[in-house]
Amino acid sequence: MHLKSRLKLSYKERSDLTKNSAAKKLLNLMEDKKTNLAVGCDLTKKEEVLKLVKKLKDEIVILKTHIDIIEDFDKDLTNELKQLAKDYNFMIFEDRKLADIGNTSQIQYTKGIYKIIDWADFVNCHVISGEDIIKSLNIAAKDKIKNNIPRGLILLAQMSSKGTLATGDYTKNVVEMAKRNKDFVVGFIGNGSNPEELEELANLAEPEFIIFTPGIRIDSSSDSLGQLYSTPALAINSGSDIVITGRGIYQSNDPYKLAKLYRKQGWEAYKNRKK
Amino acid sequence: MHLKSRLKLSYKERSDLTKNSAAKKLLNLMEDKKTNLAVGCDLTKKEEVLKLVKKLKDEIVILKTHIDIIEDFDKDLTNELKQLAKDYNFMIFEDRKLADIGNTSQIQYTKGIYKIIDWADFVNCHVISGEDIIKSLNIAAKDKIKNNIPRGLILLAQMSSKGTLATGDYTKNVVEMAKRNKDFVVGFIGNGSNPEELEELANLAEPEFIIFTPGIRIDSSSDSLGQLYSTPALAINSGSDIVITGRGIYQSNDPYKLAKLYRKQGWEAYKNRKK
Repeated sequence: MHLKSRLKLSYKERSDLTKNSAAKKLLNLMEDKKTNLAVGCDLTKKEEVLKLVKKLKDEIVILKTHIDIIEDFDKDLTNELKQLAKDYNFMIFEDRKLADIGNTSQIQYTKGIYKIIDWADFVNCHVISGEDIIKSLNIAAKDKIKNNIPRGLILLAQMSSKGTLATGDYTKNVVEMAKRNKDFVVGFIGNGSNPEELEELANLAEPEFIIFTPGIRIDSSSDSLGQLYSTPALAINSGSDIVITGRGIYQSNDPYKLAKLYRKQGWEAYKNRKK
Repeated sequence: MHLKSRLKLSYKERSDLTKNSAAKKLLNLMEDKKTNLAVGCDLTKKEEVLKLVKKLKDEIVILKTHIDIIEDFDKDLTNELKQLAKDYNFMIFEDRKLADIGNTSQIQYTKGIYKIIDWADFVNCHVISGEDIIKSLNIAAKDKIKNNIPRGLILLAQMSSKGTLATGDYTKNVVEMAKRNKDFVVGFIGNGSNPEELEELANLAEPEFIIFTPGIRIDSSSDSLGQLYSTPALAINSGSDIVITGRGIYQSNDPYKLAKLYRKQGWEAYKNRKK
């Protein structure tokens, strides 16, 4: 029901619909920078991560991190990423997939070595523990938001892996929870590898919600551990707003060239869908 | 259908049923040490964690950690915990709730700063991404297991928080996945706060699977962030094997006294249920 208006509206127009400042910033940034590409960076050394980001900084609108896989992590890394994000106009999404009860998830978001809340514009969570995880993370982010530091939460409504249980009624439940928490929930992870399923999500979710899709790759349709893939254009035409690519870019011989290619395909699909 | 045999069999008898060496070790340890108490330790300073563990070492069969909330984490901590576990006969369960696709979860389990696989006998995961997360973690643990270092995986079949989506068909799916991966899956997280729901899980899961239940507290029935509670005896009588208590113990003025109390209630319920 919402897919059509999602496809016709520009990111700019949709930035007026959302109540969340991080979502607003992202939608405007996409339009200004003319990119809807997020790069997932699953490298395990600080220097490798920084080297990749410096290569791709002008192509991406989001850097997606897995901070807990970095072997030599220290605070300098997140400080440097924050500075790069500021200087080159991209935002940071820590793909932490918080999935505990409210109290624990809140601590994981704000404390420990990583203090995700201090440097990640976006974090995501599963809602398998119930809606209180959203409320708990929202409470944790209130102070930042009050001080004009945009923070937003992305809910996993679908996944792009084989046999995922995030489908059907589960997805519907997630969208309902988002609708009740519009001040903090900016959108959803949708299944980039499955255009039909993605359309279902795009139909459920009002255009103020941003749909982020992993499972995007031009050169491959699966890995050996159950991940499935589709292309940028198919995802964008089915309602995705942000194309997330990981190994398809960072494992290639020329990540910069690949990022330009993914960016071009994603952006052209976006321009065409509005026509 | 399986609840009755679960309640009548001793932990010792059940240690012969499981194929997994970590499960075998745990079931025997419980019988030898006469405790089915796990303490969840959600403290954020190394010294606080170690102080608590040294107090409770003789009462617990499992220490449940959230390693990523510890502000001053370093490798000395996990080394020391490992040594304490060896010296005082308890096992370590990192409550990481891995919840990503197979490839990423595998990296999170084995790499980064924490290298969970090196020190945690047990780790848990959600299977929302599909069965490949189990296979991926199993592949990662193969070398340890081959070298007689027991490693086991606990699946979140239920949760103890308000409005959790891990119920009904979801729970059934999780149990089916466990049955197909018996060499690595040792059991389930069940809903300790809801005896009726727990019985459903205990009926689905063969007695070779161990049921671990958070949501256990003697003095309280909920927190302000959606967590619900029941008592050790109710949980054990409904099929739980391991009673997990967190804030009910570590936030009390006398954690040692409380641990003794929870341990006594859990163990007596276990002895009585076999009659």
